[in-house]
Amino acid sequence: MIEYYDISGCYILRPWAMAIWEIMQKFFDAEIKKMDIQNCYFPLFVSPGVLQKEKDHVEGFAPEVAWVTKSGESELEVPIAIRPTSETVMYPYYSKWIRGHRDLPLKLNQWCNVVRWEFSHPTPFIRSREFLWQEGHTAFATKAEADAEGKKSEMEKFAGGLYTTSVEAFVPNTGRGIQGATSHCLGQNFAKMFEINFENEKGEKGMVWQNSWAYSTRTIGVMVMVHGDDRGLVLPPKVASVQVIVIPVPYKDADTQAIFDACSATVASLSEAGIRAKADSRDNYSPGWKYSHWEMKGVPLRIEIGPKDLANSQVRAVRRDNSAKTDIPRDKLVEQVKEMLDNIQQSLFDAAKQKRDACIQTVKTWDEFVEALGQRKMILAPWCDEEEVEIEVKTRTKGEMGACKSLCSPFDQPELLEGTKCFASGKPAKKWTYWGRSY
Amino acid sequence: MIEYYDISGCYILRPWAMAIWEIMQKFFDAEIKKMDIQNCYFPLFVSPGVLQKEKDHVEGFAPEVAWVTKSGESELEVPIAIRPTSETVMYPYYSKWIRGHRDLPLKLNQWCNVVRWEFSHPTPFIRSREFLWQEGHTAFATKAEADAEGKKSEMEKFAGGLYTTSVEAFVPNTGRGIQGATSHCLGQNFAKMFEINFENEKGEKGMVWQNSWAYSTRTIGVMVMVHGDDRGLVLPPKVASVQVIVIPVPYKDADTQAIFDACSATVASLSEAGIRAKADSRDNYSPGWKYSHWEMKGVPLRIEIGPKDLANSQVRAVRRDNSAKTDIPRDKLVEQVKEMLDNIQQSLFDAAKQKRDACIQTVKTWDEFVEALGQRKMILAPWCDEEEVEIEVKTRTKGEMGACKSLCSPFDQPELLEGTKCFASGKPAKKWTYWGRSY
Repeated sequence: MIEYYDISGCYILRPWAMAIWEIMQKFFDAEIKKMDIQNCYFPLFVSPGVLQKEKDHVEGFAPEVAWVTKSGESELEVPIAIRPTSETVMYPYYSKWIRGHRDLPLKLNQWCNVVRWEFSHPTPFIRSREFLWQEGHTAFATKAEADAEGKKSEMEKFAGGLYTTSVEAFVPNTGRGIQGATSHCLGQNFAKMFEINFENEKGEKGMVWQNSWAYSTRTIGVMVMVHGDDRGLVLPPKVASVQVIVIPVPYKDADTQAIFDACSATVASLSEAGIRAKADSRDNYSPGWKYSHWEMKGVPLRIEIGPKDLANSQVRAVRRDNSAKTDIPRDKLVEQVKEMLDNIQQSLFDAAKQKRDACIQTVKTWDEFVEALGQRKMILAPWCDEEEVEIEVKTRTKGEMGACKSLCSPFDQPELLEGTKCFASGKPAKKWTYWGRSY
Repeated sequence: MIEYYDISGCYILRPWAMAIWEIMQKFFDAEIKKMDIQNCYFPLFVSPGVLQKEKDHVEGFAPEVAWVTKSGESELEVPIAIRPTSETVMYPYYSKWIRGHRDLPLKLNQWCNVVRWEFSHPTPFIRSREFLWQEGHTAFATKAEADAEGKKSEMEKFAGGLYTTSVEAFVPNTGRGIQGATSHCLGQNFAKMFEINFENEKGEKGMVWQNSWAYSTRTIGVMVMVHGDDRGLVLPPKVASVQVIVIPVPYKDADTQAIFDACSATVASLSEAGIRAKADSRDNYSPGWKYSHWEMKGVPLRIEIGPKDLANSQVRAVRRDNSAKTDIPRDKLVEQVKEMLDNIQQSLFDAAKQKRDACIQTVKTWDEFVEALGQRKMILAPWCDEEEVEIEVKTRTKGEMGACKSLCSPFDQPELLEGTKCFASGKPAKKWTYWGRSY
C-alpha cells in the first residue's frame, strides 16, 4: 500500500492504497454534493499575517508549520507557510464574498494535501507530514444552523474552535483510540478575526457561524489496523478496488484454455453487474502463490476455477475473512457473489464492533481506571469535565505507552445518577466520557 | 471562476472553475484507466540530492523551485524542495520496484498540485505559481513501446527529455500560442541517473524507456480565451457544470406557482436524462438580470418558461453561443435539448477551428515571416531544425510583445519540396514548423 520515502514522515501511496482513497472520495464527494456543498481549490500557501490572525489557531499549529523561505537562489521577502489546514487561507475570502444573507449559507469543500511537520513518531497513514484529505468549510447566518450535536472536551477541541464532534476509532490490538474524522463548530471566532459579516433581511449587521470538517487518508490506516489479520490486509468489499480475484487452477491434463476462458467470462459477468473483479492469469505463478498473494492484499473474495468446476458448471468461492469455501453454480454467479460480498462487509463490521465493545470498560474510581488502562481498554468514566483534571490525568498516566486522554463523549450518554462522582477528581460528574491512549 | 489571492501568482479556483476541472478529470481519468494506468500519490517534497540527479532537468527547473527551510521555529537540517514536477520524486522508486521484465510496463499517474515560482507575469490559469494537473509516468522495456509520434524542436523539449509531443493551442485574439498538454519521451536519461534497470526474458540487463505526460488547469484558461466573447464566458456543453439554466418568467397576472412547477419539472426531466440542468428560482432578481448573469457565466443553453409557454406546452430555448431562440414542445424537451447541446458543442469547435485556420499563414522568407508576425499570425515555415537558428529568431523578434519561438511541428507535414530553404537561415529546410509568440 505504501512505500517509505526518503524524507522522514512522508510516504508514497501506491495504487493499492490510492484506489481505496479514490473509492472513499467518490462516495463522500457524492454525499456532500447532495448537501449542496461545492468543491473549490484554494492555494497551498498562506501568508504569515493571515496565518497569525486567529490566536488560538496559530498557537495550535505554529510548531508544525513548514515555511518556504527561498525560490531558486533568492530569499523570499516574506516567508510563506504551507497550509496545515485552510481556515486562514479561506476565510479572508469568505469575508469578501459574503455580503448579505442571500450569500448564506456558503458551503465549500476541497480535496487537497496539507502539511504538518510533526516530530512525534511518523507512522504510515496515521501520522504523516503530508497527507491527503477533504476539508469542508461552511458559514451560516445562525448558530442553530451551524450547530451539530455532541462535544469533545474543552482540551481536545480544535485550535480556535467552539466545540468539536469526532468519529473516534479504537484499535483493539494496541488499545489506542484514533481520531477518524472531525467536525469543528468554530462559532464566531474566525468570523470576528476575519470580519465575516453580513446584512440580514432587516438590514441589520450579523456575523456568520462557521463549521469546518475533515477526514483524511488516516482512515485507511485505521481500516488496516481494525480489519487486518496475520495473513495481511482484509479489505471491506465497499472499499476494495478488487472485490473478487478470479484464479485459474489448471491441472496438468486439464483444458487450460477452457479454464482461462471461464475465468474471463466470470470476470465479464461480475464486472457487468458492477462488481470490481479481476482475473490473475499470469502463467509464471502457481495457483497457491496467487492465493497467498491476493490474501495478503486483502481481496474479499477469491474465485477458483479448475477442471472439476468447469465440468460441474460452477466456481469455487473462498472468503478472505473466514476462509469459508462455497461452490457457486455458474448460473447463480452474480447473485451469490453479491450476497457474499454484502455478507463479508457486514461480518467485518460486526466483528470489529464486537471487538470494540469487548474493549469498553466502565469504571467509576481511579483504581478501576488504572486497572482498565493496564488492560488496554477503552474506558468509559464519569467526569467533572474540567480541563485541569484532564491535565492531571495525563500527568498521572504518563509513561512508556504515552498518556491517557479523553477521547470523546458519546452522543448517547448512559444515565448519570445523581451523586455520581468524577473518577479522577471526585467532584460531581457532569458527563460520561471515553478515555484511553491515543494515536 | 477565480479569485485573486494575497500571494502573487496564486489564485483561488472557485466552484464554477473547479467544477470544470472535475469534469475534465473524470473524463481523462476514465480514459487512462482503460489504458491500465493506475493512480498513486507521491509526496509534495523532494530532497535536494534527488532533485539534482538529472543535470538538464534540474537546470530547467532550478530557478523556479520553492524551498522549505524551516518548520515551526527550527531550521531544517537540509532544505527541502517542493515538486515542480515529479520525475525526480518518483523515479528512485521506479528503480526499486522494477526488477524484471514482468514488472514492466509500469504505468502510474497522479492528480496533484505542483509549484513553480515563476517571475514572469502571473496570469490566472495560464501561468500560476501553484497549479493542479495530472502527471503520468510510464516505463517500458523498449523504445518502440515508449515512442510516440511527433517532435518538438530541440529547444522546446522538456528539460532532460529526448523529445516532446504537445497539444499546442492558439489564441486568435492575442495571436499567441499556448501549450495545452505535453508528452515527453524521456528516453533513458532518467533511467541512467536513477538506475532503473530490469532483467529481460533471457536474463540480460536492460534499461527502461520512459514517458511522462501532463495536462493542467491551464487548459481551462485556454478554453476561456478561445470561446469567450464580449458578454463573458462561453462554456462548451461537455465541460459546463450547468449545461441548461431554466428561468421562470412570471408576468404580473401569471400563475407564478404553475410556472415555477414547470421549471422544476423541466429540470427533473433533463436531469433524469443525464443533462446537467438547474433552475434559477430566486425571487429577488428579475428574469432579465438572470439572463445576463448566466450569459456571463457561459451556460450553453437557457430555457425560459413564461405564461405563453405554459399555455402552449412548450419552453423557449436560447443558445449562449449565437443567441438563437427556439420553442421546444414539452414532449420533445429531452430529445431537442440533447440535440441542441451537441450542436452547440460542434459549433464552438467549428468556429474555433475556423478562427485558428484563418490565423495560419504559410511563409517561406524572413520578410514574409516578419509581416505575418506583425499580423499576429500562427506561422508555418520551413526550418532547418537547428537550435542556433531558433535562438537567432528569438533575438531578432524580441520586443514589447515578447520573442517569437517554434511552437510545434505538425504530425501531418505539408510536402517539403526539394531545395526548400529555412525561412530564417537560408539553409536546407528539414521540416515545416509552426512559429509564433507564446504564453
